[in-house]
Amino acid sequence: MNILISNGTILPMDRPEGGELYFKGYVGIEGERITLVTPSESLAREFLDRHAEDCTRIDAEGKVIMPGMINTHTHVAMAILRGVSDDVPLMEWLEEHIWPIEGKMGYEDVYVGARLGMLEMIMGGTTTMVDMYPYEEAVAEAAESAGIRAVVSPCPMDFRMEHFEQDWRAVKKRFSASRLVTMVMGPHAIYTLSGKNLQRSISLSKELGVASHIHLAETQTEQDNCMKQNGVSPTEHLEREGLFTTPTLAAHCVVLSDHDIEILARNNVSVAHNPQSNMKLASGIAPVGKLLKAGVNVSLGTDGASSNNDLDMWEEMRTASLLQKVATCDPCAIPAYTALKMATVNGAKAIGREGELGVISEGALADIQIIDIDKPHLYPHTNLISELVYSTHSSDVDTVIINGNIVVDGRRCLTMNAKEVCETAQKHIDRLMAK
Amino acid sequence: MNILISNGTILPMDRPEGGELYFKGYVGIEGERITLVTPSESLAREFLDRHAEDCTRIDAEGKVIMPGMINTHTHVAMAILRGVSDDVPLMEWLEEHIWPIEGKMGYEDVYVGARLGMLEMIMGGTTTMVDMYPYEEAVAEAAESAGIRAVVSPCPMDFRMEHFEQDWRAVKKRFSASRLVTMVMGPHAIYTLSGKNLQRSISLSKELGVASHIHLAETQTEQDNCMKQNGVSPTEHLEREGLFTTPTLAAHCVVLSDHDIEILARNNVSVAHNPQSNMKLASGIAPVGKLLKAGVNVSLGTDGASSNNDLDMWEEMRTASLLQKVATCDPCAIPAYTALKMATVNGAKAIGREGELGVISEGALADIQIIDIDKPHLYPHTNLISELVYSTHSSDVDTVIINGNIVVDGRRCLTMNAKEVCETAQKHIDRLMAK
Repeated sequence: MNILISNGTILPMDRPEGGELYFKGYVGIEGERITLVTPSESLAREFLDRHAEDCTRIDAEGKVIMPGMINTHTHVAMAILRGVSDDVPLMEWLEEHIWPIEGKMGYEDVYVGARLGMLEMIMGGTTTMVDMYPYEEAVAEAAESAGIRAVVSPCPMDFRMEHFEQDWRAVKKRFSASRLVTMVMGPHAIYTLSGKNLQRSISLSKELGVASHIHLAETQTEQDNCMKQNGVSPTEHLEREGLFTTPTLAAHCVVLSDHDIEILARNNVSVAHNPQSNMKLASGIAPVGKLLKAGVNVSLGTDGASSNNDLDMWEEMRTASLLQKVATCDPCAIPAYTALKMATVNGAKAIGREGELGVISEGALADIQIIDIDKPHLYPHTNLISELVYSTHSSDVDTVIINGNIVVDGRRCLTMNAKEVCETAQKHIDRLMAK
Repeated sequence: MNILISNGTILPMDRPEGGELYFKGYVGIEGERITLVTPSESLAREFLDRHAEDCTRIDAEGKVIMPGMINTHTHVAMAILRGVSDDVPLMEWLEEHIWPIEGKMGYEDVYVGARLGMLEMIMGGTTTMVDMYPYEEAVAEAAESAGIRAVVSPCPMDFRMEHFEQDWRAVKKRFSASRLVTMVMGPHAIYTLSGKNLQRSISLSKELGVASHIHLAETQTEQDNCMKQNGVSPTEHLEREGLFTTPTLAAHCVVLSDHDIEILARNNVSVAHNPQSNMKLASGIAPVGKLLKAGVNVSLGTDGASSNNDLDMWEEMRTASLLQKVATCDPCAIPAYTALKMATVNGAKAIGREGELGVISEGALADIQIIDIDKPHLYPHTNLISELVYSTHSSDVDTVIINGNIVVDGRRCLTMNAKEVCETAQKHIDRLMAK
């Protein structure tokens, strides 16, 4: 399929800061790639002539054409657990509410929960998600049918290594030719993995040539226990264990010393910052400003919906900026364009796909969202970058294209029946809670 | 006009915690008041029979009927300045960007900006706003035509006392019989008012029998300067000056000592908490937990759109809860129902209208919002209170009733032409910035 998007304001996210960040123009898509990004009407006409027989036209007059969001840390199937438990201490939340239900969740529940979360994400302009959960095979299957790009992370944990081994093999077998799904290893965290199982994950990463995706330094408790057990911080521990010899995406990174930050920078570890989850669970405030200053690539994630409680990258972007401003007493911290980069280009870099995702560039994959800025809460239009970060909501996303396919058109999801997805999820959680 | 809302889930906000907070039922409105709140179908039928000739019916099946939000601190006309300046230090923001434009704004600009802000608020379920700005006469006029309830605060400041005297007299003359507009005094802040002008405000409050609405303890700079000039904190200073002998609504209250909190509690001062503005301007984090514990009534406000950058009470409610959790390292801080109270009943109390606003009760004024919870990001339905606070967006507000009038119906504003309001605001800011 070919697509020509016309007359929109294009925010490509690949221009040098200080120059022109956006311009009015045309975006042409051939198959799964963007092949034209131009202000020129005559080039757009040529594109149309070339594809006269097969070209879908999208009129983006008065709208903004920008890269889809890259959610670099989530547990998408936990959408099914939204609202099950809130406002309670962390261990009570996990032990009395979340784990007992998760313990009953099978392949089908994960599939159903993942579809609900993917529906929410697609409708809000998220085009790529990095997931970690049991049954990543089910998440991969859901992603293929939802039409969302997914990096799935089969997840070794001491108490379910056998399940993990089955899971990664199944994902590899079924999805190695997928245009949407890729796999990394998801060693859960230092507190759920023995040294031996962590080494198994690292060696698998190397054998398969894939990255590692881990929870790191999320809470003070993790830090304190690691100091007790290993005499070093979680970051220092993982460097010693050799994890960072694989390309690594570390989620949370709230409790970090300056030395930890130096380690992350030196090893080119990317950090997935999850501000709303860190706030809701009272984990703390990640030192994002320091990380960026040290040259660490920081992207954004929503974490699971049960600790957020949504999968909304627009909120995450806004919160990331506001939270750093107040935490550092600096109203200039994480300015709007930096927040936009965290949600797009930095996300692409975090999954090793810089230049191919997170940008509207010729040659990049066609993962695009079109924003309707003709809304009272977005007037007057004085500064597009501010408007997108500080005022735009996920409900302002009008059209979404993933891998060259239109998945949302005028706020209607084309790949899933929203009513069926929501009602099925409701039935599953009702059954899981009744058991 | 009479209205019967049927089959919705009613969240009246007047039930004791621990008991049933919501139930399925009917809400009947006669004129400007709610006269029926019941789960009984036969009572609803009686209401219908009684008003057979004149009754608008609203089917709220699958929706939530709850009180409209009360935004207790805003400068609504600043909606016209949205995006004009962001990510810069406070004084540069004020001196180089905001004040130069505000200096050029006249009655008509304030009216136009107020309409834009009111359109955004109404569409997001805010039914009452407490404003402070020059030309409150224009804000009152805009509120009457927009159909939103407004408490306007003509605002003495040293450099425009004459303007203030004209403004309050004009509001009093034109709007004293208004069903929507009421007036309080808005002494701006200790750093913009001489002792003499503050006393003028206090004596006017007493003479007219109205409350005071003031900026208090917003920044460390205000605290430091007050200590230098008066040897006491801003709160101590205002108590000495006698402000609290009038019913007082104090906005921000970020920098407070335990003694300040005790003063606020002892004097029944209400605090309008503005978490997103305090974050964006890097002012700090108000001690909301301590204030509530001391018995202080804490409500919510958005502040102006230029330091937020929206007028969205749903975001403010969510942020208030998340920010206190992370600031106090306590995931139980500001649980969801407390956040809902801050946005509704506490707001009513803050403006001296407890029981009459902020609740769905027989006898209360009919200020109601109806929320469409049939959205992917709100599934599954497991806990309505959590769902409203942690996942609902202003765009989920379907219908809004203010003072018994339907102002939003199926996300369409009935009192204003949205396109005209937005385009007029754009023209005004373009002209103001070009000057």
